[in-house]
Amino acid sequence: MKTRLAKEFNDSNWSEKKIEKELDRLVEVGNSASDEIARPTYLDPPSGTRDFYPQDMRVRSWLFDKFRESASHFGFQEYDAPVLENVQLYERKAGEEIVDQMYNFVDKEGYHVTLRPEMTPTLARMVLQKTNLQTGEVRVPLPLKWFSIPQCWRFETTQRGRKREHYQWNMDIVGVNHVHAELELLAAACFFFRKLGIGPEVVGIKVNSRAVLEVVLAKHGVEKGKKNEADGGDLFAMACIIIDKLDKIGGDEVTKLLANIGVSTDSAAEILKALEAPSVEELANLIGTDCEAIHEVKRLFELAEEYGISDYLVFDASVVRGLAYYTGIVWEAFDRRGELRAIMGGGRYDRLLELYGGEKCQIPCVGFGFGDCVIMELLKDCDKLPKFTGSGVDYVVCAFSPDLYGKAANISMKLRMTGATVDLMPTPKKKVAASFKHADLAGARRMVFVAPDEIAKGVVRIKDLRTKTKNDEAIQVDCPLDALHTVDDLIAKALADANS
Amino acid sequence: MKTRLAKEFNDSNWSEKKIEKELDRLVEVGNSASDEIARPTYLDPPSGTRDFYPQDMRVRSWLFDKFRESASHFGFQEYDAPVLENVQLYERKAGEEIVDQMYNFVDKEGYHVTLRPEMTPTLARMVLQKTNLQTGEVRVPLPLKWFSIPQCWRFETTQRGRKREHYQWNMDIVGVNHVHAELELLAAACFFFRKLGIGPEVVGIKVNSRAVLEVVLAKHGVEKGKKNEADGGDLFAMACIIIDKLDKIGGDEVTKLLANIGVSTDSAAEILKALEAPSVEELANLIGTDCEAIHEVKRLFELAEEYGISDYLVFDASVVRGLAYYTGIVWEAFDRRGELRAIMGGGRYDRLLELYGGEKCQIPCVGFGFGDCVIMELLKDCDKLPKFTGSGVDYVVCAFSPDLYGKAANISMKLRMTGATVDLMPTPKKKVAASFKHADLAGARRMVFVAPDEIAKGVVRIKDLRTKTKNDEAIQVDCPLDALHTVDDLIAKALADANS
Repeated sequence: MKTRLAKEFNDSNWSEKKIEKELDRLVEVGNSASDEIARPTYLDPPSGTRDFYPQDMRVRSWLFDKFRESASHFGFQEYDAPVLENVQLYERKAGEEIVDQMYNFVDKEGYHVTLRPEMTPTLARMVLQKTNLQTGEVRVPLPLKWFSIPQCWRFETTQRGRKREHYQWNMDIVGVNHVHAELELLAAACFFFRKLGIGPEVVGIKVNSRAVLEVVLAKHGVEKGKKNEADGGDLFAMACIIIDKLDKIGGDEVTKLLANIGVSTDSAAEILKALEAPSVEELANLIGTDCEAIHEVKRLFELAEEYGISDYLVFDASVVRGLAYYTGIVWEAFDRRGELRAIMGGGRYDRLLELYGGEKCQIPCVGFGFGDCVIMELLKDCDKLPKFTGSGVDYVVCAFSPDLYGKAANISMKLRMTGATVDLMPTPKKKVAASFKHADLAGARRMVFVAPDEIAKGVVRIKDLRTKTKNDEAIQVDCPLDALHTVDDLIAKALADANS
Repeated sequence: MKTRLAKEFNDSNWSEKKIEKELDRLVEVGNSASDEIARPTYLDPPSGTRDFYPQDMRVRSWLFDKFRESASHFGFQEYDAPVLENVQLYERKAGEEIVDQMYNFVDKEGYHVTLRPEMTPTLARMVLQKTNLQTGEVRVPLPLKWFSIPQCWRFETTQRGRKREHYQWNMDIVGVNHVHAELELLAAACFFFRKLGIGPEVVGIKVNSRAVLEVVLAKHGVEKGKKNEADGGDLFAMACIIIDKLDKIGGDEVTKLLANIGVSTDSAAEILKALEAPSVEELANLIGTDCEAIHEVKRLFELAEEYGISDYLVFDASVVRGLAYYTGIVWEAFDRRGELRAIMGGGRYDRLLELYGGEKCQIPCVGFGFGDCVIMELLKDCDKLPKFTGSGVDYVVCAFSPDLYGKAANISMKLRMTGATVDLMPTPKKKVAASFKHADLAGARRMVFVAPDEIAKGVVRIKDLRTKTKNDEAIQVDCPLDALHTVDDLIAKALADANS
């Protein structure tokens, strides 16, 4: 079978996996469009990626505009960087899913590059480009409040429905070593939710602190800065990545994985118990010390009250996030029904710039990543997506016959110069009905039909498709060709006359 | 040397080219920042790519907004697709630079993929996804008027200053088999130029027709549909790609290359002569036939007159463009000083969808690609770029001391809820001067300083940084904390009082 298929597909290097996928695809094609010729694979977008047709793009642009508006309301500035990055930026030896599933390759000059799996290392790199590595001095005024909406990639065996790319709203504050930065980011996310009509009864944000977890783990031998003997990975970071899997794999499995990095079963049990602490106070009791890390979490919740966002926040000792570089407060947004994956995740990463730039670059950072997929599912579920119908163009202009096309083009350009958006139908149409159908599909506000009788009189007929008289009649006016800018007035007058 | 360096860089697989580039880099680093530690390479963006810091991003967003506005004024709708595409989409065997320089690789499942070199094949693919390949019927109403601003990639040996990526405004009309579609695209480009203040004295658009060239070449044995014996490539497409190089390599070299595909020296001389025809009429004389292709060009120039864009257009028989798929009218925009590369290029490609989708898919298309780099150079040269200073935030809010931070946060959120953009300074500052410096850098309109005395009275002091009284004094008001939405009125009143 494999041989026959491979031959058929005219490429003996096809892997078995590839052939299986191709079979899946053919079955799908066969089901959905039996009247058609089998479609060449290259007509599909690459596996696990999305095309954005205009109707999809309208939704995406709407969402991105909301991201941008929220960022702008909080005084953040947009940046961007190439989708391609050096693989070295992600070499962290901590078993993170995001690093294990990189979309990486070797380029034609031998460089190891990857489609970026996430944006934070890129941000760190860009900040360090503006930093004197010898002194740690950043040559732009701190703090930086930056945001971006990059497309991020991963490569894993595709299962249906799992994508290889997504867009992610990233918000970061660089240069603030205290909890006001976390608050600002949390407030921006809450502002975004509220603006979309997603209240705290629908989403919550679980907040925790790796600094607190550090205290817990230190009691069980996993001390800050300690390296794993096998591969030199940071033990604490590895423990966090294991604990992050708790929800998915359960306590027994976490205990086993912790054993691999030297945590005894008894210790694991105590750690798991701490992760269940229902409040920061009880966690403090469990630890038996009222440390600075605990104070910080308390202060965050107090200030959230004044900021007006505490209804969204909940303390959750089990939230650690799956990235190695977090060092302090971490959080993730979730839907309260518990049906969706995390909506947004973030936290403090005070050591990442030092890791890249050397010991002088101890530049504190906090940030979050907010994917475009889960929020869209939530918005659909809550019926909070606007209706996106037609392109909403101001005018559709149609010429009655080919010899009037130049006239129609001339009128279209004049209307555009007044600021209007104009869809000039490329092919003249005698049938008024066909033109109106087009205008209707486009969601146009007005229809201009360029016909010989009016043109001979030096005017053009413009019909308003949205305004009706009190007798439910459409308004139309004959507008002089040399005064197209007066059309609004003419229509207003026609309406007033008809209604008087 | 190579061995020593390779050892030093701890990777014996480095190619000589890579080592040379690394040396270049070290020299550059050494020159520009001798006070610094050598920067790890992974802190640079990948070779030939650009980071967009906020100040760069403001410029880019401004340009993209202008692209979008122009597209929207012409009733085009935005679409997008993944930056990664199947290599097969670009296999055209015609010696195009764009195809020879693909940023391609084999993914972990054995698929041949590439960072897209251009957008047109993606558009074709997306249209064919909505087409019944057996009947050629497109399941969405034609014509489509679509635009996109994709990032496009190429891989070539980097020389300094040559980039591996750029953004390209793409505008396409699908489903119109006559010259009105070309006109609409040319008009949109001219509209864009005019809106930016770039008149026809600064840029021109050279227009020609491959259909006319087809008639010329057919006389010399290069007939439409004829294949190259060596590799099965389309002879006419190959001839076009050779002729496109005329400007760069000169007539002798073009003659040599044409000889490789079977064109005699005499024929080449006659072809080169035809390319110099100063007008479409003279070209018609040279051909000795007044064919449909000639009529089409004439009609385009006549309609351009009515459309009000003929001042931008010039006929140029030597313009053919370097892409294999063009079949009819082609054009390119150039700066009239002749200092820059082509600003924009486009044309009709009526056979591309057939090539991908089969003989039923004879769907006519026209489109252009408009890069982001050359136009930026031109805008700078013409001094037509706006000044981009600060983020232009409405308010900067600063707390006098840490215990007032919650109050400052509260005020910030209330101001945002009124629609304002607010930059809350994360770290409280006692020094008013420092806060003002920050507000100034941010280009803020107003400054809110949250201090204990006012707060005790239930108000906050808001200073307007842009409005001065007639005596050149700044306006400031004490706004009640429970009526922050009234601040505009208060400031207007204070100004009137001061000026009365």
